[in-house]
Amino acid sequence: MYNLLMKIGLGQINPTVGDFNLNSAKIIDLIEEARHEKADLVVFPELCLTGYPPEDLLLKPKFIADNRLALEKVAKAAGGIAVYVGFVHQEKGVLYNAAAFIEDGKVKEIYHKMNLPNYGVFDEKRYFLEGNKCSIISYKGLKIGLGVCEDIWVEKGPYEEEIKKGAQLILNINASPYHVGKIKEREELLKRRAKKYKATFVYVNMVGGQDELVFDGGSMVFDRRGNLIAACDQFREELLFVDLDKDRITGWQWLEEPEEIYRALVLGVKDYVIKNGFSEAVIGLSGGIDSALTLAIAVEALGKDRVHAVFMPSEYTSEQSYRDAKKAAENLGVEFAEIPIKAVFSHYLEALNPNFKGKPADITEENLQARIRGNYLMALSNKLNWLVLTTGNKSEMSTGYCTLYGDMAGGFAVIKDVPKTTVYRLADWLNKKQTVIPEAIIKRAPTAELKPNQTDQDVLPPYEILDPIMQAYVEDNKSVKEIVALGFDAKIVEKIVAMIDRSEYKRRQAPPGPRITPRAFGKDWRVPITNHFKE
Amino acid sequence: MYNLLMKIGLGQINPTVGDFNLNSAKIIDLIEEARHEKADLVVFPELCLTGYPPEDLLLKPKFIADNRLALEKVAKAAGGIAVYVGFVHQEKGVLYNAAAFIEDGKVKEIYHKMNLPNYGVFDEKRYFLEGNKCSIISYKGLKIGLGVCEDIWVEKGPYEEEIKKGAQLILNINASPYHVGKIKEREELLKRRAKKYKATFVYVNMVGGQDELVFDGGSMVFDRRGNLIAACDQFREELLFVDLDKDRITGWQWLEEPEEIYRALVLGVKDYVIKNGFSEAVIGLSGGIDSALTLAIAVEALGKDRVHAVFMPSEYTSEQSYRDAKKAAENLGVEFAEIPIKAVFSHYLEALNPNFKGKPADITEENLQARIRGNYLMALSNKLNWLVLTTGNKSEMSTGYCTLYGDMAGGFAVIKDVPKTTVYRLADWLNKKQTVIPEAIIKRAPTAELKPNQTDQDVLPPYEILDPIMQAYVEDNKSVKEIVALGFDAKIVEKIVAMIDRSEYKRRQAPPGPRITPRAFGKDWRVPITNHFKE
Repeated sequence: MYNLLMKIGLGQINPTVGDFNLNSAKIIDLIEEARHEKADLVVFPELCLTGYPPEDLLLKPKFIADNRLALEKVAKAAGGIAVYVGFVHQEKGVLYNAAAFIEDGKVKEIYHKMNLPNYGVFDEKRYFLEGNKCSIISYKGLKIGLGVCEDIWVEKGPYEEEIKKGAQLILNINASPYHVGKIKEREELLKRRAKKYKATFVYVNMVGGQDELVFDGGSMVFDRRGNLIAACDQFREELLFVDLDKDRITGWQWLEEPEEIYRALVLGVKDYVIKNGFSEAVIGLSGGIDSALTLAIAVEALGKDRVHAVFMPSEYTSEQSYRDAKKAAENLGVEFAEIPIKAVFSHYLEALNPNFKGKPADITEENLQARIRGNYLMALSNKLNWLVLTTGNKSEMSTGYCTLYGDMAGGFAVIKDVPKTTVYRLADWLNKKQTVIPEAIIKRAPTAELKPNQTDQDVLPPYEILDPIMQAYVEDNKSVKEIVALGFDAKIVEKIVAMIDRSEYKRRQAPPGPRITPRAFGKDWRVPITNHFKE
Repeated sequence: MYNLLMKIGLGQINPTVGDFNLNSAKIIDLIEEARHEKADLVVFPELCLTGYPPEDLLLKPKFIADNRLALEKVAKAAGGIAVYVGFVHQEKGVLYNAAAFIEDGKVKEIYHKMNLPNYGVFDEKRYFLEGNKCSIISYKGLKIGLGVCEDIWVEKGPYEEEIKKGAQLILNINASPYHVGKIKEREELLKRRAKKYKATFVYVNMVGGQDELVFDGGSMVFDRRGNLIAACDQFREELLFVDLDKDRITGWQWLEEPEEIYRALVLGVKDYVIKNGFSEAVIGLSGGIDSALTLAIAVEALGKDRVHAVFMPSEYTSEQSYRDAKKAAENLGVEFAEIPIKAVFSHYLEALNPNFKGKPADITEENLQARIRGNYLMALSNKLNWLVLTTGNKSEMSTGYCTLYGDMAGGFAVIKDVPKTTVYRLADWLNKKQTVIPEAIIKRAPTAELKPNQTDQDVLPPYEILDPIMQAYVEDNKSVKEIVALGFDAKIVEKIVAMIDRSEYKRRQAPPGPRITPRAFGKDWRVPITNHFKE
């Protein structure tokens, strides 16, 4: 056996796409801190110099050049220490998703990621060429095997070869997006790899929100027996030091599910708002649970003074909705404004009357009310520079139970990937310590209040039935037949699947929102609008 | 030398994604016609059984199974003739972009596309594995080399090997989307390949609109000396027969540019509307050139009785706008309705007054007017099942000179990829035979008429300057430095590029529209919203 006399810093940072000054400054700050702490090596996430995913910015030569300059700045700052950091390497006109091992101010080795994900939310083959060689470097008496992200997920990856060649310590840097339960998948995989290869595995992940993706951090280290010996929190920046031969942790617990989702949403909102240059947000409160939960998340993300609630009653709005909305805002300490839509609505109807040719009221009038509200929120946004946060959940986004340019209008859709049943779970969890979301809101039958005595269940099956069907179809990619075989009524399954299919055009014009499930309506959902396929 | 005693049918069809019944019926109809004409072989486009691009429908096992059944149906219908047709082949759990050579009712050979495009609008590596072997088959005394689309664009593709092995006739089937000038690139390439390899090249392309893509057809055959011996029209379905040893054509001309673009837009609109189950469309006419051109395209695509024009004047709308809009509708024989927005607008302002805290009028009030119009059009759409066609051009979509949920609200954005200067060229071309777009509209300075005496050039440089800068940045991916080096004012270039960068959030919520340039705001433009990169 050998000793692992090495102190490593896990640099779990939150970079911003394209912000080379910010990203390199963050890295350099932590390098300095690590040197001060007498660490031997500090490890940063995949592509953390550029931010992830840089998408088509990678096609710009200046972007690549700036990234290279940032790497050089980082290298220069790394005197007397080693650094492993992700960047884009251009060689012979080709781009690689790369990582540099820097030792005492010099780039000693550049590794090219060998396994490029091109599925789900990932498009890495659009930009990068696969690397074709493993990298082992010797540093302070240890043999260190290099790699990036996906390299650890494949069964016969570069690490296997590196281990065969004597690697004792494995570095794996990541930009691995969050979804429910992902951290435990990572933990199990790393444990398995460490045990199998009898090597120490250092896994460093990015943290932060980037458009629809939330990187959850949760960096960790496993020793050669497969014991977790260091772990960073999820959802926050951290520089954690680990003495490989000394440190042990026991009883480490990741966040439990409703809280984990809540933290992901909070970080997603915070980073979208702040990184896009906004400081305040506005939310239309309906008196329902979706907008109340969205408000709570926004307040946690931005602070109560930076969030504005607007209640926009129509002739169908109940007294209860007013009371509950007001109470939700009060509970959170948020400014509450009221803008009635009735007068504008009736003027619209009057103007449209000649064109409607005596046709009866239908979904048109419902959508119109939602759109008037959307207009008010956007007017406030334009005038006061508040970002509009929309409040639709995934059950609605799936089935199209939402209004394009109405309740869908806004910059960021906070709970668009949260199924309604999870909305309830989040509300219950939030209320555990003290009542945040008025209990009356939670107890009440969900309603859009766009016509008299309306409830969601006029059109949709109960959410306890809708959600698992929706999740089976959208997230698990199951067919109607397979879903029916799970024990659901065939008619209901067919109806829901048809609703999901024909709502694609709405989703295409929806704002982005944080992904928390294995498959969200975003980069990992690429479905044609023009589509005659029938399940 | 050998004789090419073969009569081939080029089956340039317009399939619909996921419509296996329709697609196989189209193919079978043409097979029957080809047999009746005593053709030896009939060739259909890439993935024409599924439609292209099927995107994530490819992840559904039932989709793949239905596609296979459709292939079997086609094979069964191909007694006494040969057919080359694109489909998805599943083998050992992996998908291939494949083509079947069917002879006398039996699948004789299956070719797997060896070069998978994963750039621009293409994501083929998301779904398919590359094939790894060439296919030559012998049929009626000729050696035929098989391949699909991209295979012909690479320098050392499968065809080179097939030629070495004696192929005399090359089949290349495509789902190649249109952009300006693409047909000539294809023609030159095919001519070059045919000459170099001294073989006959049969190139069959798909035709039709699929969301943002327009496939333009233009199938063609080159003899072994590089002479064009057969060519299908662009933008329409066709079954063209060619006797390889006999047929010659001389002086073939593809469509010239403004007309070619016009035909692409018309087909894009027609297929989007019809394939999505609409039969009528509505357009907000402003009295400006964009909406007038959009109206003309819609009338050509759908017929004048299926298109509705709505004029929505505000207090800033001039008499001239009314006259010009009315005349544009009259010229095209389209129903013209008028819905003033003034009353609703003033009610909005009144309701917002307490929230606006005495702030002066700004872009907010302008956007609000555009959004009221958007609401009216959407209300008509909801009530009467008319698809809203939006009228914004690419110069506006680039710079963000448009209102989200306002003039951007609708199902299909007809000219979103057409720069303003091309809008003028199209209008002039349209007016050549008779005045379609009133000359007053063409002559007038462009204005959004959202405040007094407004013109586009209050905010934007003249379109003759804006468009080439925009095109250099967006379509040619040039940097600010490179664009300035082309001779443009640095300040103007920087301003335009900054406008383009910061409008990404709007484009993300825009409806799709037909792509006519080498790079549109769609699948080939994947730029993060959260983006601190500065040119």
